[in-house]
Amino acid sequence: MRSLQALTVGFLGPKGTYSEELALSLYAEEQATLVPYTSISSVIRAVETGEVSEGVVPIENSTEGSINITLDMLAHDVNLFITREKIKQIRNYLLIKNEQTGESNGAEKKIEVIVSHEQPLAQCRNYINTHFPAVKIKVVESTAAAASLVASGEPGWAAISSQRAAEIYGLKIAASNIQDNDSNCTRFIVIKKKTDTIVAEGCYKTLLVCRINGERPGALYELLTEFVRHSVNITKIESRPARTNLGEYIFFFDIDGGIQAENVKALIAAVQVKSLWFKNLGSYLCDANS
Amino acid sequence: MRSLQALTVGFLGPKGTYSEELALSLYAEEQATLVPYTSISSVIRAVETGEVSEGVVPIENSTEGSINITLDMLAHDVNLFITREKIKQIRNYLLIKNEQTGESNGAEKKIEVIVSHEQPLAQCRNYINTHFPAVKIKVVESTAAAASLVASGEPGWAAISSQRAAEIYGLKIAASNIQDNDSNCTRFIVIKKKTDTIVAEGCYKTLLVCRINGERPGALYELLTEFVRHSVNITKIESRPARTNLGEYIFFFDIDGGIQAENVKALIAAVQVKSLWFKNLGSYLCDANS
Repeated sequence: MRSLQALTVGFLGPKGTYSEELALSLYAEEQATLVPYTSISSVIRAVETGEVSEGVVPIENSTEGSINITLDMLAHDVNLFITREKIKQIRNYLLIKNEQTGESNGAEKKIEVIVSHEQPLAQCRNYINTHFPAVKIKVVESTAAAASLVASGEPGWAAISSQRAAEIYGLKIAASNIQDNDSNCTRFIVIKKKTDTIVAEGCYKTLLVCRINGERPGALYELLTEFVRHSVNITKIESRPARTNLGEYIFFFDIDGGIQAENVKALIAAVQVKSLWFKNLGSYLCDANS
Repeated sequence: MRSLQALTVGFLGPKGTYSEELALSLYAEEQATLVPYTSISSVIRAVETGEVSEGVVPIENSTEGSINITLDMLAHDVNLFITREKIKQIRNYLLIKNEQTGESNGAEKKIEVIVSHEQPLAQCRNYINTHFPAVKIKVVESTAAAASLVASGEPGWAAISSQRAAEIYGLKIAASNIQDNDSNCTRFIVIKKKTDTIVAEGCYKTLLVCRINGERPGALYELLTEFVRHSVNITKIESRPARTNLGEYIFFFDIDGGIQAENVKALIAAVQVKSLWFKNLGSYLCDANS
């Protein structure tokens, strides 16, 4: 029945971002229209307002950790559900204008400004400090925007971006695989207004977020006993500010299993009872590689 | 005996940063020379190399959460100890050049670029989106650098910075208290190469960081039972990537009590045994307001 309604997917654009690469592979077999947005928050807002039927956003990187804006908005600002996850290996490239010196050494001497999204800049922090200790850093909304800026801008600028962005924006690769950690991966999620139907044989995870009484010693421990009591494995735990006072947090629990599983159902009920505030961000299909 | 050796303190400069304000109040009664650095990482490195005797760096903000660079460097890159914490209320101001239109509405129309450190930009995310939806964002190393840039730069630029920076750089306040959350606070720490002598009557906290076997379900829970068994209260728990593979984390535990307390000593021994990797980042004097 899906074909009756056009499938539109928001992602962090423009053309050539890691998000677009991921979306292209994720929706390769569906007739989906990919709609670029200029920030992660505007992708999430577009799903919330119904401007697009779903969105693809990064939630976590293996070097830099959680994408705070994604977690914070899902917790505080919108009512959306995660339906899938997909992990993508991220290789970062240093891209320069074609007329610049080709040799790595020559290029390094000339590069005065490195521009990228804040995530790849952080993923390549050691590389930048070692090779370009005096360089100026400029943060823009996406890696593709960075490539586009370098293509249209001054010589002496370099972008940290993808191989595909080099092709799209006609840039030269000055250095390859410059990420500090070779197993640099980003986990993306698909978000929708409604949860998908659970497929009985699928592998699922569920993301819960709650606030407990942080003033009471042992409150976190007591909450964790519920996970053990119901034999639910936590794959990730993350604290974020509750946006009230310093020292008050909300906790994200990524767990194995979907809402169709009896133990997950029972756990959710128990966590809800013990929380001052609670939100189920949905049961989602695992990436086979996770 | 301290006076025999000059006390030098590294902080995130230049003049007019929140870090400098904090350092000025913290060392008001000591003969300390404050040494500005251009980034948090260079403050931490300067303490590690002995260039300064101690450093003041932010570790956590009530809106934006942990300062990742501080946690990651203390865990992975240096061997330093925390000796004190100090909490500072952060009020953000929108600063413009004196010759720009004074009225808030007039100024808003003219502001095309907002420049600041990434933290205040995130702390004022809603304010910016509401009042300046189309503005360009520029990230620099510090709030004072942002103010200096606006003072010397184009009209149409505005800095998010402190009231003190407005005075130092001769800027006009276009809007006051623009942080999204009125209880916006940042927690700073003092770091040194050696721990201070514990004062018997002082109130202490201790920061531990460890890596456990994330593959084994229940490993985190088992670790947490040690805190309960030794009656040690966790004031903050934070996970950060282990910098190995996606899904592998290190955990930071901020706990009540210093190393002089028997239960803390016993807990540390127990956590050490259960960890694949462990580091004690020191027992530090609490801020009375924390």
